[in-house]
Amino acid sequence: MAVYTEVSDEALTTFLAGYGIGTLLSYKGIAEGVENTNFYLHTTSGSYILTLYEKRVRAEDLPFFLNLMEHLAARGLACPQPIRNRDGVALGELCGRPAVIVSFLDGVSVKRPQPDHCRALGRALAGLHEAGADFGMRRDNNLSVASWEPLFRIAEAQADGVSPGLAGRVRADLAVLQPNWPRGLPAGVIHADLFTDNVFFIGDDLSGLIDFYFACTDSFAYDLAICLNAWCFEADGTFHRDRGAALISGYEAVRPLTEDEIAALPVLCRGAALRFLLTRLVDWLNVPPGALVQPKDPLEYDRRLTFHRGAKRAADYGWSG
Amino acid sequence: MAVYTEVSDEALTTFLAGYGIGTLLSYKGIAEGVENTNFYLHTTSGSYILTLYEKRVRAEDLPFFLNLMEHLAARGLACPQPIRNRDGVALGELCGRPAVIVSFLDGVSVKRPQPDHCRALGRALAGLHEAGADFGMRRDNNLSVASWEPLFRIAEAQADGVSPGLAGRVRADLAVLQPNWPRGLPAGVIHADLFTDNVFFIGDDLSGLIDFYFACTDSFAYDLAICLNAWCFEADGTFHRDRGAALISGYEAVRPLTEDEIAALPVLCRGAALRFLLTRLVDWLNVPPGALVQPKDPLEYDRRLTFHRGAKRAADYGWSG
Repeated sequence: MAVYTEVSDEALTTFLAGYGIGTLLSYKGIAEGVENTNFYLHTTSGSYILTLYEKRVRAEDLPFFLNLMEHLAARGLACPQPIRNRDGVALGELCGRPAVIVSFLDGVSVKRPQPDHCRALGRALAGLHEAGADFGMRRDNNLSVASWEPLFRIAEAQADGVSPGLAGRVRADLAVLQPNWPRGLPAGVIHADLFTDNVFFIGDDLSGLIDFYFACTDSFAYDLAICLNAWCFEADGTFHRDRGAALISGYEAVRPLTEDEIAALPVLCRGAALRFLLTRLVDWLNVPPGALVQPKDPLEYDRRLTFHRGAKRAADYGWSG
Repeated sequence: MAVYTEVSDEALTTFLAGYGIGTLLSYKGIAEGVENTNFYLHTTSGSYILTLYEKRVRAEDLPFFLNLMEHLAARGLACPQPIRNRDGVALGELCGRPAVIVSFLDGVSVKRPQPDHCRALGRALAGLHEAGADFGMRRDNNLSVASWEPLFRIAEAQADGVSPGLAGRVRADLAVLQPNWPRGLPAGVIHADLFTDNVFFIGDDLSGLIDFYFACTDSFAYDLAICLNAWCFEADGTFHRDRGAALISGYEAVRPLTEDEIAALPVLCRGAALRFLLTRLVDWLNVPPGALVQPKDPLEYDRRLTFHRGAKRAADYGWSG
């Protein structure tokens, strides 16, 4: 949520000369995304977003993300489309950073999603999974179950200082999840970070999905589990069953879940919550001095885990077969 | 340069319903302006800037600023035009802050102005002074000569820690400027903060002036002196005489300076530099913990003052009569 890199008018004008998108009319640094610098660009040909990738995005992952957005946009998914420069290349460099221009998507993120938003999200998520089916690249999910133990080790000693008993609760979750993590579920490209910030609506209609920088190859149902966590709980841990039911039924209207996926949903939801608890906890304990970004509260996910620990069946999340 | 106040989609949609500018398509927090929260707004009727005024802008000054922008825009000056709501009122309230929507201006700020930019600026500045001639409101310049002694007192004890000898140099400048500050020069509405950030160009053409939140009633030539400081020096204090000549001649192409103004130019330039030195010094010494904004270097103006102390005539700034 900050402009980490200043870009001068001269540097930007030179950079834009390499693209066939007209001349610069305006650009503004925008508070979008946590880890990159983003500018709203207005040129004689339209509106765009310019992203400069800061250090937390690995440059070697960028071709996966950019090719994926191009692939999905070509299949009709409403997502930012990378603009290729005059040499046919989408990935450029500006002010010493990898830099990309993508098409601008209209739409607004909802802070308090209603069941209709969740139903639209479910449809779009399944559409993404289908549109990615013939995408030729692969990227492992480096924040899946194998990463949780090492992440926990970084935070373990300080965890009880954040919330009494937190270390023990995480240890118990790991002991359940590691041996029982589902294998062999239907898999492919997943978004893996489809929080409300990354989904746009115009009025009640879903207008687009953004921020593919956690996208990877993993189980489709795990992506649904992430969305159930991100869209269907209050910060205090209260689960909204009506939102969950709408999200799942929207998803199944496009891509019905298999029996294995339905059976795995509670453990996937619990794992997804643990993943966000752990990454948030590590960030919370490692705020650099002078940070421009307020870290997100890890305990929101500790409270969601209370619900997940008691959930036994997909029906507990609103699935009604 | 930060979003100090988060605005939810629901709060913004409710706020916009009070205006006749269509429905919301998109909004982004932008890193524009140092002291307020600004959003780029896109609606079905076009593009706008939404500003929420944070604590450093005095609410009682807002009618002056808003009426002035409306007055100037009506006289053809390219500046943001406040949008009145359905009740005919431009000043609203959103998230507990005074809030205003203005028209969006295309254009880009130049980081390294060339003489042609300075000439265009001079013309626009004189145009602003002429367009403001029949503006009915008045606002004293609370950062003029009378304020400098009190500002200096806040910073005096720590000044030499910022740069050895700084306190003595400022004291000597005050001793020269206070008794010799020009009175009775042609006066009216001035912008008083026309730094490069606040002037937009499209290609080589000046496309607009923004950020009227220091505008006040004062000598026109003082506004020109502020621009000479802001546009015609390097950070190391080097004066670009070609830029100064272009700025002054551009100004005089629209509004010729009087003899008194020409004679006063060196002392006005020295005063303008001292004003920015002092406000930057106070900010520099009072950065709040957790500040999102990097304070600007006061010593840039100490170095400009070295030039001003040696300047005797308008010709030293490029004026050629």
